[in-house]
Amino acid sequence: MDKQNGQWRLARRPVGAFQDGDFTWTVQPLPTLVDHEVLVRVVYLSLDPTNRVWASQDSYLPAVKLGDVMRGGGIGVVEESRNPAFAAGDTVQGLFGWQQYYVSNGKDLQKLPSLPVPLDAWSGLLGHIGLTAYFGLLEIGLPKAGETLVVSTAAGAVGSLVGQIGKIKGCRVVGLTGSDEKCEWIVKDLGYDAAINYKKENVADALKKQCPKGIDVYFDNVGGEILNEVLGQIALHGRIVCCGMISMYNATTPVPGPANIINLVSRRARMEGFIVLDYQARAEECFRELIGWWAAGKLKYRVDVSEGLETAPQAILRLFDGSNAGKLLVRVSPEPR
Amino acid sequence: MDKQNGQWRLARRPVGAFQDGDFTWTVQPLPTLVDHEVLVRVVYLSLDPTNRVWASQDSYLPAVKLGDVMRGGGIGVVEESRNPAFAAGDTVQGLFGWQQYYVSNGKDLQKLPSLPVPLDAWSGLLGHIGLTAYFGLLEIGLPKAGETLVVSTAAGAVGSLVGQIGKIKGCRVVGLTGSDEKCEWIVKDLGYDAAINYKKENVADALKKQCPKGIDVYFDNVGGEILNEVLGQIALHGRIVCCGMISMYNATTPVPGPANIINLVSRRARMEGFIVLDYQARAEECFRELIGWWAAGKLKYRVDVSEGLETAPQAILRLFDGSNAGKLLVRVSPEPR
Repeated sequence: MDKQNGQWRLARRPVGAFQDGDFTWTVQPLPTLVDHEVLVRVVYLSLDPTNRVWASQDSYLPAVKLGDVMRGGGIGVVEESRNPAFAAGDTVQGLFGWQQYYVSNGKDLQKLPSLPVPLDAWSGLLGHIGLTAYFGLLEIGLPKAGETLVVSTAAGAVGSLVGQIGKIKGCRVVGLTGSDEKCEWIVKDLGYDAAINYKKENVADALKKQCPKGIDVYFDNVGGEILNEVLGQIALHGRIVCCGMISMYNATTPVPGPANIINLVSRRARMEGFIVLDYQARAEECFRELIGWWAAGKLKYRVDVSEGLETAPQAILRLFDGSNAGKLLVRVSPEPR
Repeated sequence: MDKQNGQWRLARRPVGAFQDGDFTWTVQPLPTLVDHEVLVRVVYLSLDPTNRVWASQDSYLPAVKLGDVMRGGGIGVVEESRNPAFAAGDTVQGLFGWQQYYVSNGKDLQKLPSLPVPLDAWSGLLGHIGLTAYFGLLEIGLPKAGETLVVSTAAGAVGSLVGQIGKIKGCRVVGLTGSDEKCEWIVKDLGYDAAINYKKENVADALKKQCPKGIDVYFDNVGGEILNEVLGQIALHGRIVCCGMISMYNATTPVPGPANIINLVSRRARMEGFIVLDYQARAEECFRELIGWWAAGKLKYRVDVSEGLETAPQAILRLFDGSNAGKLLVRVSPEPR
């Protein structure tokens, strides 16, 4: 076997945003497969806020070790298999890492079921993004028709699905995002009732205007000051889905929490975290419903593709400055026909 | 009718802790009762952290108006009634305010059922204290046998009941309180597994030592730095019952929230507030169980009685410096025989 495997390895713990030198590019020959092993060619690498956490500290998964290939989720195609459960040509997903090929023992690999969706839907609609939006909103947020739902990173991969699912469930949906283009997209194309450009508008005032009866459900991807403003306007028995706190991931010193947390008491409100891994076992019911909505034109997704694995360290910065539009992916190799 | 009614009225909004001059003492003759009215002689006035909130701002109840009698819960005895639902000699509870007599329209008054408990049990074991401890811990905290429960203000009115109910439910219970005497009391008399003197010990280190498997349930009466340390050590799927945040009530500028709130995500933890008013309708089931435990010697309460209504403005300060031992009450007039 004479294929070469290009890889990004974690060279040092990032301080603040990722910088040049945090990753090192290495090229290694692929090993010969032994029994039960499967060789995967990576097609799409998923770039997610949680990657920043994995690079610096133990969390729900241990931190990536220095010198190891950077951890990342992906979609790929089996090129060679010595495992009876997989055959060449199968499309698969797993934590393949930031590399062109992945050698699996066959246990850490999931075959993608044959469903009537394009391959990139596994990154932008289904997979961990879909599970996060679907179960986070419906099981933790418990939205009811007529309630007001606020979504941060409303044009992002998870947020854009959350807002649309909120509309399907009959909520008034208000999205926060960072550009006029994205504000327009979520209102005109995705059906949000209102959009707030948090970089230009006073968030507290805009929320007050758009949520006159208070905020019943907040799907939080950012934490920080926006979380504080939402807590200031949380409705009685409101629920905050703690999906992520991207505003804190690059922090080099502890970021104070929201002073308005005191409102949890008087408003009888709830904040609750969750991790998508807890819902893997229920993926089928989620994907069936998401595909149904997508096929009916009620649920749209958008992917933002960076071409070539070499672009990954630069591309991921766009998650943190808010310049991505839709699910951020790296195309590592061509889609299979 | 020539009885005089001594009253503490709110003279100005407190800034920080209550100070001399926040209340004014007035004496007024009692009016003659009209149809449906009931005259209550106040026996015990309850002093609670929430009084500080009522004095300065709208919350789950509107702020007390300047010049009005300070709001407060109490236990009293009916002296005269022009309402068929009440008779002289009935013991009653309600928001009587900081005064010696209360004239009720008969609607804002609850007759105390005849139960085999001393009158002060309505302040220290039953009433809003018992409801808060019972429903807050059991309905929001959902403790399971074998789990670790941490209680702040562990020797206080609510906290001391919470810790003992936690023991009844089979938890390992660790209490935080502010003096060695109270630490000894909660361990030796109430059966806590461990006590931490937060004024002398390093709270993070002490929690780590006493909760080696993390904190499953935290009953929070204080907020602030202790809440932050608990969030730092919260167990997977941990629950924080947000009962009160006394450390923030006297604050004159917004107090930053806990930086470790970010752990809600990776630990899939929940923080949830509640207000005892939401559970009034279920008081009977709660009181039946609390009295059963008390009669069996499994649940103790302690009252800390300040003699005479004139002492109320000074006595309430003890809630905030932690010097009270058990439920803080003012004896406004003698118990009926």
